[in-house]
Amino acid sequence: MKKKSCVILAATGTVGQRLVDMLSKHPSFDIVDISASKRSAGLKYRDRLKDEWHLPSEIPEEIGEMTIKLTDPKEVEPADIAFGALPSSEAKVIEPKFAAAGYYVQSKASAMRMEADVPLLIPELNVDHLELIDIQRKNRDWSGAITTDPNCTTVGFAFALKPIYEEFGIKSVVANTWQAISGSGIPGVPGLLINENIIPFIKGEEEKVESEVLKILGKKEPSGVRNAEFRIASTCTRVPITDGHFETAYINTERKIENIEDVISCLKKFKGTPEFLKIKQKLSYAPDDPIVYRSEINRPQPRLDRMAGTVPGMATTIGRVRRGIDDYSVNLCLLSHNTIRGAAGSSVLGAEVAIALDLV
Amino acid sequence: MKKKSCVILAATGTVGQRLVDMLSKHPSFDIVDISASKRSAGLKYRDRLKDEWHLPSEIPEEIGEMTIKLTDPKEVEPADIAFGALPSSEAKVIEPKFAAAGYYVQSKASAMRMEADVPLLIPELNVDHLELIDIQRKNRDWSGAITTDPNCTTVGFAFALKPIYEEFGIKSVVANTWQAISGSGIPGVPGLLINENIIPFIKGEEEKVESEVLKILGKKEPSGVRNAEFRIASTCTRVPITDGHFETAYINTERKIENIEDVISCLKKFKGTPEFLKIKQKLSYAPDDPIVYRSEINRPQPRLDRMAGTVPGMATTIGRVRRGIDDYSVNLCLLSHNTIRGAAGSSVLGAEVAIALDLV
Amino acid sequence: MKKKSCVILAATGTVGQRLVDMLSKHPSFDIVDISASKRSAGLKYRDRLKDEWHLPSEIPEEIGEMTIKLTDPKEVEPADIAFGALPSSEAKVIEPKFAAAGYYVQSKASAMRMEADVPLLIPELNVDHLELIDIQRKNRDWSGAITTDPNCTTVGFAFALKPIYEEFGIKSVVANTWQAISGSGIPGVPGLLINENIIPFIKGEEEKVESEVLKILGKKEPSGVRNAEFRIASTCTRVPITDGHFETAYINTERKIENIEDVISCLKKFKGTPEFLKIKQKLSYAPDDPIVYRSEINRPQPRLDRMAGTVPGMATTIGRVRRGIDDYSVNLCLLSHNTIRGAAGSSVLGAEVAIALDLV
Amino acid sequence: MKKKSCVILAATGTVGQRLVDMLSKHPSFDIVDISASKRSAGLKYRDRLKDEWHLPSEIPEEIGEMTIKLTDPKEVEPADIAFGALPSSEAKVIEPKFAAAGYYVQSKASAMRMEADVPLLIPELNVDHLELIDIQRKNRDWSGAITTDPNCTTVGFAFALKPIYEEFGIKSVVANTWQAISGSGIPGVPGLLINENIIPFIKGEEEKVESEVLKILGKKEPSGVRNAEFRIASTCTRVPITDGHFETAYINTERKIENIEDVISCLKKFKGTPEFLKIKQKLSYAPDDPIVYRSEINRPQPRLDRMAGTVPGMATTIGRVRRGIDDYSVNLCLLSHNTIRGAAGSSVLGAEVAIALDLV
Repeated sequence: MKKKSCVILAATGTVGQRLVDMLSKHPSFDIVDISASKRSAGLKYRDRLKDEWHLPSEIPEEIGEMTIKLTDPKEVEPADIAFGALPSSEAKVIEPKFAAAGYYVQSKASAMRMEADVPLLIPELNVDHLELIDIQRKNRDWSGAITTDPNCTTVGFAFALKPIYEEFGIKSVVANTWQAISGSGIPGVPGLLINENIIPFIKGEEEKVESEVLKILGKKEPSGVRNAEFRIASTCTRVPITDGHFETAYINTERKIENIEDVISCLKKFKGTPEFLKIKQKLSYAPDDPIVYRSEINRPQPRLDRMAGTVPGMATTIGRVRRGIDDYSVNLCLLSHNTIRGAAGSSVLGAEVAIALDLV
Repeated sequence: MKKKSCVILAATGTVGQRLVDMLSKHPSFDIVDISASKRSAGLKYRDRLKDEWHLPSEIPEEIGEMTIKLTDPKEVEPADIAFGALPSSEAKVIEPKFAAAGYYVQSKASAMRMEADVPLLIPELNVDHLELIDIQRKNRDWSGAITTDPNCTTVGFAFALKPIYEEFGIKSVVANTWQAISGSGIPGVPGLLINENIIPFIKGEEEKVESEVLKILGKKEPSGVRNAEFRIASTCTRVPITDGHFETAYINTERKIENIEDVISCLKKFKGTPEFLKIKQKLSYAPDDPIVYRSEINRPQPRLDRMAGTVPGMATTIGRVRRGIDDYSVNLCLLSHNTIRGAAGSSVLGAEVAIALDLV
Repeated sequence: MKKKSCVILAATGTVGQRLVDMLSKHPSFDIVDISASKRSAGLKYRDRLKDEWHLPSEIPEEIGEMTIKLTDPKEVEPADIAFGALPSSEAKVIEPKFAAAGYYVQSKASAMRMEADVPLLIPELNVDHLELIDIQRKNRDWSGAITTDPNCTTVGFAFALKPIYEEFGIKSVVANTWQAISGSGIPGVPGLLINENIIPFIKGEEEKVESEVLKILGKKEPSGVRNAEFRIASTCTRVPITDGHFETAYINTERKIENIEDVISCLKKFKGTPEFLKIKQKLSYAPDDPIVYRSEINRPQPRLDRMAGTVPGMATTIGRVRRGIDDYSVNLCLLSHNTIRGAAGSSVLGAEVAIALDLV
Repeated sequence: MKKKSCVILAATGTVGQRLVDMLSKHPSFDIVDISASKRSAGLKYRDRLKDEWHLPSEIPEEIGEMTIKLTDPKEVEPADIAFGALPSSEAKVIEPKFAAAGYYVQSKASAMRMEADVPLLIPELNVDHLELIDIQRKNRDWSGAITTDPNCTTVGFAFALKPIYEEFGIKSVVANTWQAISGSGIPGVPGLLINENIIPFIKGEEEKVESEVLKILGKKEPSGVRNAEFRIASTCTRVPITDGHFETAYINTERKIENIEDVISCLKKFKGTPEFLKIKQKLSYAPDDPIVYRSEINRPQPRLDRMAGTVPGMATTIGRVRRGIDDYSVNLCLLSHNTIRGAAGSSVLGAEVAIALDLV
């Protein structure tokens, strides 16, 4: 298969570095350019990151030699795909320019996620939402497009709730999170503040969880996506763990749960929507089982489960599925790798889907 | 005031060490004997703990010189009060013997907490439950008595729920915990399993939270305590923090919450029940405000708030009080020091109350 | 005794906050003004630090109401003492202006530490070095003066080496450090980089240890201080601990060590130089024993020993004193609280000394 | 190539579990039996470890079905190789029985390491020491043999010192360690004691480092190994890190170091002894470069470097190579994965060597 050309926007940050690492090893993509802000533009990637490359792997040889461009479609090489790892405030301005210039933008930023004509994609759950791109192109007169990945905290909840929503309906959810430090990037949360501590507030996080899940589980209709209609009340905390977001969900269901085994069973058998299964064999970043169910009483745990899945770090692990206080409620724990499934890995999978569907 | 004589049962464990430290500095108590299991009996306390004293302070001079007795009322000196820091399975057998022998047993063990004629005491919340002791003495023909302290995880929830229960009524609670390592004692949870990890299961913990809170908030009636009637669904996790249990509670109320400020206000103004306030000035371990409310968006935090209160570590800090998904729900975060208010400090305060009420 | 008036320069940083906390409770000092950089000047201290006060205690009532001034002697109120918590590059320029304007500057910055006419003070070890101030005033034509505190990492080594240097002479030292996160301040080292990690490099730290100790142990002569003449080779690392620098020193001595007990004995009996002992009773921040020796095989430990001393956090704990590979070498471990003895506490003690010696 | 049959002694512990995981995936070995102590014997491996399997991977299907035998050559199936993960006190008694019964015992225990006729093997450094096996078999009349792996802390030092010893000679070494929690196994060090702490003592560790390195760097002579003759003074500490021992070595050399680049160069070019290089291509667990040299100022770090090497976790990373206080000294930092290169990985590599040399 012919490789797709791609550029990485904001390639120097923590998500950008992961994208450089993943895409440089990926057989379907050819990195033709990398960009960053004014501070870095003009420098060789290797020189710029000499003391600031934060992955155990080495900087890929070829990328290390590239000169960083300014993040602007006039400066950056033309390409099929632009992977966007920009801060949200910049993404809001810059990504539309890339879409207008013909790039298919796979964006990690929150800026456009809740726009009515922008897909908020978790391929296993809502690949049909990519139909929004037709509407988007019409609305905005773009030759390219923008597709967004959800917030790292959203992903795990979305996977756990989708099968239950389909089978039992959901009235409301109480969501709590134990979020890893890597989610805050670098510099991110200061070491002194998070060591031996829990910080029960992450700016913007609860709003994202409470809205994004509803869009992801929403129904694609001719005019757009109709959001799922339940409500989520969340508390998001930062804990002294490097990687892996641990989360609990207490779910009030529409329909009676005769037997908690029925909930476990619907989680275990979930492989993705029919639309997703049609393209799955083309996706190297999609794990065989997007949900890994563990029966042990003390799982999931970040140390043991963050790299779960046949594509390490791309599956959501669910455990401790229990009845709530009545027959219309279920309590569960989950774990999702926040920088793989929750960030760079999602972007790569999203781009694979775009290729599989000939959107790019 | 004449000092009360006391003995410490299981004085070598982590709670026992804290009791030795606290009581040796306390003007109202005179430690006349210390006990432990067969392995330690006969040894000098200082020699036994040479490499296993785990507090920053030194072993108190006089206690260090004491010879450890076997935990048996036939071996231990007579005393007004027996502070019990035994494992639950042993407490079940041994503490009743001490109560029969005339000791007022202030017990940290879970063994007897839910017995109908045994008080489960948080003085600020239910000091009137100590009236159970009359029933207990009649039932069991004891000259002494047993009063129990709640589980470390229960305490914070009980403080947060009591004022809301009185003012708005409670239908149900979704409870989540981030529990410190010290709660597991020594050896407790292995370092390798909890470092850089979260363990989403603590044996027996969820059952305790879900039952103990209801007894503590229960109403003393002539024949005993009638438990509060709402239900709690909890998830208890261990996190890599030394001290301080962080907890969240999502509370569905009976009555409408017109304004979230009303909830905050009822928490801020809570000082204890009228029965408690009558004896408060006699209690050196009762902090001026049992609840410390923090208005900052990112509090409580273990590092900053675990030593809250005019008696450090004895107050519960509450923050992030927010509406839930409707007008009948409230979401909040709290922090309680698990080895002070949640263990040894509770025992000392409980014994102070017993003295204040002439129960001993 | 009449209080001395003082100002705190850079009162918003982590050291500045500690100084505000300590000095506001100290009977000898009256905080008359606080300063910071342009970003903060003009704001109320409480408003500026609303979400950035990082101590468990509250912002002192009165200081909270003060308006922050720009760090400039023309803006700041006149005072006897200026406590300097400025970054080194700024201290280099600003502190001399305060000294020229008549303030006695007690500086935490490294900028002036190695200047020939500036004392680098650890009162127990070299209070006679304050005689440099006469030279300094002549040299620089200042009505005020500058005295500096050593780097947080230097302090522990200086205490451990001084008695051995006096008794056995020192030829060379191999020094290793395990430094706490708080030493880097806020933002300091990013959480993601230090959690579950060791960073074996701290900019400028090894140079400071290797030079400062020699000046502190140097001999005051009429013309200045003659540095001690041995050499130190150090490796400084950051470890995931909140507070307390753990350090090891392998010391090659000039004279034969007949018995390792002789080394232990000289450490245990050390109380300070004769010059120091003359003023000691006037110093509330000087612990009874500046060195706490522990005989346990597994001490010192940060969790247990960082608050050592009759003034918590002001004593250095030494343990594991052993022979090296021959009779001319000794190996030991030590622990020193980096933000108390290593920062704000040192400044307060230094100012107490200045008062005791009528330098201010 | 025909597979070699093997058994794993003490297959339920942390090292045993790693061996099960590694060997079940290894093409050269066929696990024919597993053993443990009386408590576990008779149980299915999967059932025994249901809640105590501590690796992210799953229990290998076939091994899970095996019934655990008692660790006794009369109970265990005959096999070419016995991988020994026994506690040292048991190994001392049991391993010789297996050697006598014809097994080639690759032992992780310290019991026999310093015996004159037992190889203490790091293949890259001293594969010629395996000639001791002839002596051993004569001495002890064994049809099998025992070869030992060094202590996890020894390995990194041995790699760093070997090239320098060969090129410059060594007079003495000051060694310090920052050891990961996994080195203590499970239960190992209690979470409460190591979280937010450093413990400056590990029983037996310093003695091992100080003796084992000298044997490993010793010269094979007809009658046995003559130990290297320098001396090591070490301080071993436990730090709150999951995996990866960080260590520093301050080395006094026999010969003058004209240029520190000469030291770096001898470390970088080191690939193993000539005897090792002859068999290297037969060894799948030997990384291409046993020493990875890093030029960055802040490396090695556990998080980034523990999985270094073309066989992850099998290479030692060295950095910060600097002059000491004179031209006869060098200071360096190193990192070695304690449970891979320092434990199970060493055993697997050792067995591969035994096969390559037709010792089994």
